[in-house]
Amino acid sequence: MTELDYIAWIRQQTCLGDHVLLGPGDDCAALTWPSGQPVLITTDMLLEGSCFRLAEAGPYRVGRKAMAVNLSDVAAMAGRPIAAVVSVGLPRGLEATAAQQLYRGLRDLADAFSTALVGGDTNSWTGGLVISVTLLGEPTGRGPVTRRGAEPGDWLFVTGPLGGSIAGRHLDFTPRIFEAQRLHQLVHLKAMIDLSDGLAADLRHLCAESGCGARLLAGQIPLTAAAQTATDGQTPLDHALGDGEDFELLFAVSPADGAMLLAQQPLRPLGCELSHVGVCLPQGLELQHPEGQLVPLPETGYVHRW
Amino acid sequence: MTELDYIAWIRQQTCLGDHVLLGPGDDCAALTWPSGQPVLITTDMLLEGSCFRLAEAGPYRVGRKAMAVNLSDVAAMAGRPIAAVVSVGLPRGLEATAAQQLYRGLRDLADAFSTALVGGDTNSWTGGLVISVTLLGEPTGRGPVTRRGAEPGDWLFVTGPLGGSIAGRHLDFTPRIFEAQRLHQLVHLKAMIDLSDGLAADLRHLCAESGCGARLLAGQIPLTAAAQTATDGQTPLDHALGDGEDFELLFAVSPADGAMLLAQQPLRPLGCELSHVGVCLPQGLELQHPEGQLVPLPETGYVHRW
Repeated sequence: MTELDYIAWIRQQTCLGDHVLLGPGDDCAALTWPSGQPVLITTDMLLEGSCFRLAEAGPYRVGRKAMAVNLSDVAAMAGRPIAAVVSVGLPRGLEATAAQQLYRGLRDLADAFSTALVGGDTNSWTGGLVISVTLLGEPTGRGPVTRRGAEPGDWLFVTGPLGGSIAGRHLDFTPRIFEAQRLHQLVHLKAMIDLSDGLAADLRHLCAESGCGARLLAGQIPLTAAAQTATDGQTPLDHALGDGEDFELLFAVSPADGAMLLAQQPLRPLGCELSHVGVCLPQGLELQHPEGQLVPLPETGYVHRW
Repeated sequence: MTELDYIAWIRQQTCLGDHVLLGPGDDCAALTWPSGQPVLITTDMLLEGSCFRLAEAGPYRVGRKAMAVNLSDVAAMAGRPIAAVVSVGLPRGLEATAAQQLYRGLRDLADAFSTALVGGDTNSWTGGLVISVTLLGEPTGRGPVTRRGAEPGDWLFVTGPLGGSIAGRHLDFTPRIFEAQRLHQLVHLKAMIDLSDGLAADLRHLCAESGCGARLLAGQIPLTAAAQTATDGQTPLDHALGDGEDFELLFAVSPADGAMLLAQQPLRPLGCELSHVGVCLPQGLELQHPEGQLVPLPETGYVHRW
């Protein structure tokens, strides 16, 4: 297959949205932008062997994941996604249907979140499959939610069970776009982050940006079935703290907002149960076991090294 | 080196611009956007072995090229670049200084065109170096210039000599941002494209989008020294027509505007000599040799295949 055949095929698939002045096929795409609204922008790259195994996942789920991880970043700002561009490095010899399935995976999830695929860059090479998505979004309601606003005393919540994502959920998760927007309407989200590196590591990031500490309550951290049944010698809690790619949201709210969220569970109609997993402190990162024992928060979580 | 060290180092380098509400270090970056202005967006990925040889180019020039090819796409719309994000796949074992040089190459060119580097994604893997840049810009003056508006009778111009870019210019070219903006002020740019696949291939793209044909005048196509001295058996004209990565602009204007540009050479103060290389026709793609002989335009130019 050639780049030109692929681009011609993609252009046939393209369903342009409200914001699209100029879609795929020119040097740039062009979007209208809501007057006065900031542009949220995020980018994430997936690399074969590191972020997925192509033979195991198949190209459809790789495309889907590439879009999903970017949507999750926009969710973490309580934003609304608008449009995306995609660059790919395709291994020589990849079948035409595999390239098309990759696009279908991207496109199906983009469509589900009203996100226009407006352009990209198609390359081939002798290396593994690489895909990089850049997503634009706009803030909703009270503006972008950053990692910066958590304060001592705030309650920490997560949007779902954690750990063991490698068993499959890292490919099939649904980004928490709608949940974040609903929360943003209901309460003052003081700080938020999506869990891509693991709860312990991402809590560390959120606290570093906010200039505070935190205590996690081990007994209240929700665990996935995959974390509970893993047989690799780590405890379910180890998995929940250390495994990356949960793509749930971790956020801080005032105790009053937190109590309301716990009492009302307002996201239950969306299939999302909120868990109160900790509190913010002036400093330090601690883990409190159900029996009351306090230990330093383990320094686990995925970090790229080279 | 770890991802976290690299991101911390990058954040120390970051000089935020006017548009930057939130720079690197959160789930998304946030930009203010000029009210009522469309967003131009483009993305390009460079892959080791396919788009550069790391040992030959060095990481600084790879970073520079990754930014330059995206700037060239914004130039092709006569746009003004505003901000960029960068995702990288770094080979395991890459030296810390190499990762920093890669960033410096990106940054120096971004700075030269007042483009803020607002975010990115850092990965490592066992494959070759991959870098993907997404660039946002805004249209200038009369709006975005597309590939679509050329009409029979229009004159075709290029902004500089062509061919033999592989000898080095593909790494060191200066994107024609300022030249395009100046042209956009002076004349009605009916259609424009940057020459990334080679003059013959990119003219084919421009004509396909515009629904017209064209005749190139072989004797008027400016040739680089590299094209003139190549010793691979191809003629200098073959190089000018078929070599990719010139990153000059090809554009169509009315004969009256064309005559003015030729007479006045208004870009000469920017070091840019305009060449009238052809005319648009109702259909067909032809090459006219200096002696008058007409032949079909060769189907050369770089196309990714897999």
